[in-house]
Amino acid sequence: MSIRTDLAVEAREMYQKSNKGDVPGVYIKEYNEGECKITDVEILNEEGEKNLGKPKGKYITIDMPEFVFYDKDTMIVVSEVLGSVLSGMVSLEKSMTALVVGLGNWNVTPDALGPKVISQIMITRHLKQLIPDEIDENIRPVCGMSPGVLGITGIETSEIIKSIVKKIKPNLVICVDALASRKASRVNRTIQIGNTGISPGSGVGNKRMEISERTIGIPVIAVGVPTVVDAATLANDTIDLAIDQMIHQSNTGGEFYNMLKAINKDEKQKLINEILNPYLGDLMVTPKDVDLIIDNTSKIIANGINLALQPAMKLDEISKYLN
Amino acid sequence: MSIRTDLAVEAREMYQKSNKGDVPGVYIKEYNEGECKITDVEILNEEGEKNLGKPKGKYITIDMPEFVFYDKDTMIVVSEVLGSVLSGMVSLEKSMTALVVGLGNWNVTPDALGPKVISQIMITRHLKQLIPDEIDENIRPVCGMSPGVLGITGIETSEIIKSIVKKIKPNLVICVDALASRKASRVNRTIQIGNTGISPGSGVGNKRMEISERTIGIPVIAVGVPTVVDAATLANDTIDLAIDQMIHQSNTGGEFYNMLKAINKDEKQKLINEILNPYLGDLMVTPKDVDLIIDNTSKIIANGINLALQPAMKLDEISKYLN
Amino acid sequence: MSIRTDLAVEAREMYQKSNKGDVPGVYIKEYNEGECKITDVEILNEEGEKNLGKPKGKYITIDMPEFVFYDKDTMIVVSEVLGSVLSGMVSLEKSMTALVVGLGNWNVTPDALGPKVISQIMITRHLKQLIPDEIDENIRPVCGMSPGVLGITGIETSEIIKSIVKKIKPNLVICVDALASRKASRVNRTIQIGNTGISPGSGVGNKRMEISERTIGIPVIAVGVPTVVDAATLANDTIDLAIDQMIHQSNTGGEFYNMLKAINKDEKQKLINEILNPYLGDLMVTPKDVDLIIDNTSKIIANGINLALQPAMKLDEISKYLN
Amino acid sequence: MSIRTDLAVEAREMYQKSNKGDVPGVYIKEYNEGECKITDVEILNEEGEKNLGKPKGKYITIDMPEFVFYDKDTMIVVSEVLGSVLSGMVSLEKSMTALVVGLGNWNVTPDALGPKVISQIMITRHLKQLIPDEIDENIRPVCGMSPGVLGITGIETSEIIKSIVKKIKPNLVICVDALASRKASRVNRTIQIGNTGISPGSGVGNKRMEISERTIGIPVIAVGVPTVVDAATLANDTIDLAIDQMIHQSNTGGEFYNMLKAINKDEKQKLINEILNPYLGDLMVTPKDVDLIIDNTSKIIANGINLALQPAMKLDEISKYLN
Repeated sequence: MSIRTDLAVEAREMYQKSNKGDVPGVYIKEYNEGECKITDVEILNEEGEKNLGKPKGKYITIDMPEFVFYDKDTMIVVSEVLGSVLSGMVSLEKSMTALVVGLGNWNVTPDALGPKVISQIMITRHLKQLIPDEIDENIRPVCGMSPGVLGITGIETSEIIKSIVKKIKPNLVICVDALASRKASRVNRTIQIGNTGISPGSGVGNKRMEISERTIGIPVIAVGVPTVVDAATLANDTIDLAIDQMIHQSNTGGEFYNMLKAINKDEKQKLINEILNPYLGDLMVTPKDVDLIIDNTSKIIANGINLALQPAMKLDEISKYLN
Repeated sequence: MSIRTDLAVEAREMYQKSNKGDVPGVYIKEYNEGECKITDVEILNEEGEKNLGKPKGKYITIDMPEFVFYDKDTMIVVSEVLGSVLSGMVSLEKSMTALVVGLGNWNVTPDALGPKVISQIMITRHLKQLIPDEIDENIRPVCGMSPGVLGITGIETSEIIKSIVKKIKPNLVICVDALASRKASRVNRTIQIGNTGISPGSGVGNKRMEISERTIGIPVIAVGVPTVVDAATLANDTIDLAIDQMIHQSNTGGEFYNMLKAINKDEKQKLINEILNPYLGDLMVTPKDVDLIIDNTSKIIANGINLALQPAMKLDEISKYLN
Repeated sequence: MSIRTDLAVEAREMYQKSNKGDVPGVYIKEYNEGECKITDVEILNEEGEKNLGKPKGKYITIDMPEFVFYDKDTMIVVSEVLGSVLSGMVSLEKSMTALVVGLGNWNVTPDALGPKVISQIMITRHLKQLIPDEIDENIRPVCGMSPGVLGITGIETSEIIKSIVKKIKPNLVICVDALASRKASRVNRTIQIGNTGISPGSGVGNKRMEISERTIGIPVIAVGVPTVVDAATLANDTIDLAIDQMIHQSNTGGEFYNMLKAINKDEKQKLINEILNPYLGDLMVTPKDVDLIIDNTSKIIANGINLALQPAMKLDEISKYLN
Repeated sequence: MSIRTDLAVEAREMYQKSNKGDVPGVYIKEYNEGECKITDVEILNEEGEKNLGKPKGKYITIDMPEFVFYDKDTMIVVSEVLGSVLSGMVSLEKSMTALVVGLGNWNVTPDALGPKVISQIMITRHLKQLIPDEIDENIRPVCGMSPGVLGITGIETSEIIKSIVKKIKPNLVICVDALASRKASRVNRTIQIGNTGISPGSGVGNKRMEISERTIGIPVIAVGVPTVVDAATLANDTIDLAIDQMIHQSNTGGEFYNMLKAINKDEKQKLINEILNPYLGDLMVTPKDVDLIIDNTSKIIANGINLALQPAMKLDEISKYLN
C-alpha cells in the first residue's frame, strides 16, 4: 500500500482509515497553543517509517485558526507559535550561522511561498562580516537564497544547495516549501515543521537528491505549507465521499450496498486516473484569493523563522531590519 | 431544468445530452478557419432562448488549436480569425468611436483577462481629439477602461459603464471578460464572441444590470474566454463520469445497473453541493501555468480587437502604437 | 515671474527667496504634531493667489519624520495625523457617501501612488446598499476608483470622474495623486492636503478640466505626495547651489563676484533648458528603493483616509475589512 | 586622475577629452552593422589598462538605434547583432555547457535587467541530462541562475557563482548586469560585451571578488547595459556643461573667463559631492517608462544570447522552447 502525501498528519489519517487504532512505531501528541492546534508526529523506527511512508524523525503540524489571514493579531500569534516550535527543534549557539532556503517556482503563485518567505527573512551574515562592530553581538548571522526549480535553472536544486552549503558552511539549514495536500480544507491552513530534511522536486513526482543531516552533516529543518490540492486527488476524494454517502443511504445488505462496499479503492483510483488524466492534465485547485493568502502565509512563516533565529529580538525590532 | 453555463456551445451540448437531436429555435453551423474550429450558434426565437437559457442573438465560438500559447505564429493566426469574426459582427464607419471595456478583477489572475486586454488595446481617441492633423484619418478613435468589480469599487460595474457611455457617446462597446466553463478541457482554449450584451457579475451568480444594445442603444459585443472551472462543477462532472463508467461496466438489467440509471441527476447535484460546499468553499481549478496562459490569451484577444477596430492597419504597425 | 510647483510650501519658499518677508494675502501657521511638522498655508484673496500661483483655499502640509518607512509605529502616527487633518477639512454626516479617486498611471511606479491607495481603502458603499442590516449604521458608505490617465484610456480623467459623480452622487470626493517636487529632500517625505480641487494632468504640464467644489458642487479634497523630482529641475537647482557657493567663496565686490551676482536667473534657466532638454529628455529622479517607498506611502495615506471617513472605527478594525 | 565608469567607450571619451589624440595601448575600431553602431575597444597592454582604468581585453559596444523599443523588427536586428558579437568572442564546441548568470537586484527595476534576461534564456542542461534521446544533439546544454545581491542573500555574489561553477563545471560563463553610465543619452541605448570578467558589486562602489578566466579557469563574458545615471554624476556633468557654456559666452581673456578656466575640475567635483550628497543621497535618474524599457532590453539581450549559444536554431524555434 503506498501512501502519497507530503503531510505526516495526512499519512496518519490515511493509515488509521484503513487500519483503525494507533500507528505502530509512531508517537503522537496533540495539544493547543493559543488558537492553534498542534500535532506532534514522531516516527520512532522502521516500522513507523513503513507505516507512514516517511523517514524517522519529528513532524510537527500547526493548524492555523480560521480567518487567520484577516486578522493581523492572529497572524502574529501563529508566527510566535511557529517560532517556538522551531526553537524546540534545534539548539544553536548564538554565533552560529543559519541558511534559509526558499524552494519553489516564483512564477507560479502557489509554489512561490518559499521565495516570498526569503524576501522577508532578516539577512545579517554580510553585516556580521563587513561591519561587525556596528551589529549587536546577540544578532545571529543569517543568509538566505531561492535556488529556483530545475525547469528554470537547468540545475538540480539540491546541487545548488549543496554547493552553497559547502562554500559558506552554515550550522543549520531551514528549507521552506509549498506542499500538496489531499484535503482542500487543509490548504493554506496547516504548517508542517520536520527535522528529516527534504528532497526537492519530490512534490511533483520526482525523487531528487536528498538534503538532510544525513547527507550534508548539519541539521536541516523543513517548513512546509500545503498550498494546492491536486485536481486528480480532489476528484478521487470527491468520489469516495459520494460513494460513502450512497452506502450510507442504501439498505444494508442490499445488492447495491454490497456492490458499493465491494468497490476496490485501488482499482477505483486507477480507473479515475485513467478517466481523468487526459481531462485534468495540468490543473490545480487553489483558493480564489490565492495571491493574498500566499502573501500572508509568507509573512507568518518569515516572522516565525526570524523569531526562532533571533531570540534576542522582538518582532517590531526585526521589522525595522527588513525591506 | 436549469442550464447554467456562460458558453452557448456548452448549453447546446447539455441540451443535446438530455434531449438528443437538434435544438429547436437554434441555428448551428460549424466550420474550420486555419487551425481553429468555429461554431456559430444563433438563437433565433423565444423557443431557442428557453432551450439554451440565453437571450436571442449570435454566439460564435473559436476553439483554439492545442499548444497555441507555445507558438507565436499560431497566436497571430487566432488573432486574425478573431479579428475577422468581430468585423462580421458589426459594421461601423471608420470615423465612429469604439469603447473597449475590460471586465474583471485585476487582483485575481484568472479574472484579470479583461484588464490585461485593455492594456494592449491601441488607444487613439485622445490623439484624434488633441492632435487630429498628425493622425491618419483612417485610424478609428478607440478608448478603453477597466472598471474593476463591485467588491473593489463599491460601485456597480454597469453603473460605471453606463455613465461613461452617456458622457463620451461611443458608437460601439466591446466588453472582454473571463468566464467559467463546465469542462476543464475548454479552459483557456475557447473564445466566445456574442452580440447580446453582458450582465457584469453574472459570472459569479448575481444578475446585475444588463449592458446591451437594448439598454444603451448602441451595439455591445461580448468577448469571453473561460479561464476557470468551478471546483463544485468539476466534482459533479467527475462523479457523472464515474457513474457512467460504472453503468458501462455493470450488467445491463442488473440491480446495480438499474440503481445507477435511477440516480436522479438533479438530486445528485444537490447532494454533492451539500456535501462539498463546506469542503470546496472558494476553490477554483486553473492550469498550473495560469499566469503565462492569461498573458498570452490577453495578447491574442487584444490583437484580434485591434485588427477589427483598425482595418486600415496591420499587426506590426499596430504594435508600434502600443506600450 | 511664474512659479511652477505642485506644493504650496514650495511656492511660498520661492516667493520668500525673491521677496523676503511674509507673503501678502497668505496666512501661514506652523506647528508640530507627534514627530510631524505641519504647515498650514491659507491663500486668503486674489493677491495671495497671484503671489503663490494657486487658487484661494487651504493647503496643509505634513512633513513626515525621517526613516518613517522603516518603523511601523511611526507610519501609524502619520496616518493618525493625516486622518485628523482630513477630518478638520470637511464635515460630513455619518450617512453621507464619499468617493475616493486614485489618480495616476499604475504602470509607472512613482505615479502609481493613487491607484495603490485605492486598493487599501475600506470600500463599503455596496455593502450598505446590498446588505444594510448586516453593516453597522456608523459605517459610512465609501466607494473608490482609479480612472487611469489619458494616454491609457483615451478619455480625459476629469470626464470619467465627472460622469461617475453625476451617476452616484457622492457628498465628498477625495483625490489622491503623486506630485512633482522641486526639492529632492521633499520627495516622499511630504503630504499636502488641499481643499481647492484638482486639475488632472496638470502635473505633466497640461491644464485639463478642473474637478473642484466650484465645478461639481461638492467638496473636493486633494491629497498629494511628491514622488519625483524632474531631472531638469534638479539640474537647475544644482547649478544654483553651485553658483551660490562660488559667490560665497569669491571676494565681495570683485569682478567674478559681480558677474555671478549679475546672472539672470530666468535667462539661466532658459539656457539650462536649452542645453539640457535634449539630454535629459524623459528622465526622472527617484529614490533607489522607490517601489518600497511608494508601497509604504500608500499605506500611510490609505489608513489616514480610512480613519477620517470611518470615525467610529479604529485602525485594527478597519484592517479586518480590507483585502 | 581616476576615471570611474563601467563603459570602456566612456573611459576612452574621458581620456580623449583631457588628452586629445589616440589612447596609447588601446586599439579602436568603429563600424556599422544594420542600424547599430559598433565600437571595438581592445586594451592591449599595461599602458592601455592604466589609461582606461580597465583590465586588458576586448570591450565591444553596440549602440542601438533610437526608438528601438517601439519596433519589434529592430529589436530582432539588435539581437542578431549581439548574437554575432558574442559568437565572435568565444568558440565552444556544440556539446559544451554554458552557464548564464543574471546579476542584480530583482526588486529594483533598473537593476533587474540580469534576472529578467535569465527568465528568457533557453534552459536545456536538465533536458540533455534527463531525456537526452528526445533532445536534438545540436542543442547546447545551457543553465542559468540569478544569484541576487549581497544585501538580499547575505552571501557574496561571487561566492555563489564560484561554488556553482565548481559543482557543475560549465565551459563558459556569461554574466548579464545593469551598469551605470555617465551620460543620460547612453542609458538603455548601449550594450557592452567584454571578455575580462566581472567584479559583482563594483557598480555600487565596492570591489568584490573577481569572476574571470584568470580566477575560475574558463572564459567569462560580461554583457552590460547602462540603465541609470547616478544623480551626483548627472549634477556634476550638468555643471560642467554650464561652465563650458559660460566660458563660451564670456570674453576671451576677461577676468570671468580666466576664473572659469581656472576652476579645478577635481576640486569642483569634490565641492559638488560635499554640497550634493546630503541632498541627492540615494537618488537615481531613470527614464519615465523604465519598466517597459527594461522589459524590452531584457528581450533583446536574452535573444542575442540564445542565438549565440544555439547556433543551430532560429529565433522562432527558440521562442517555442521558452516559458
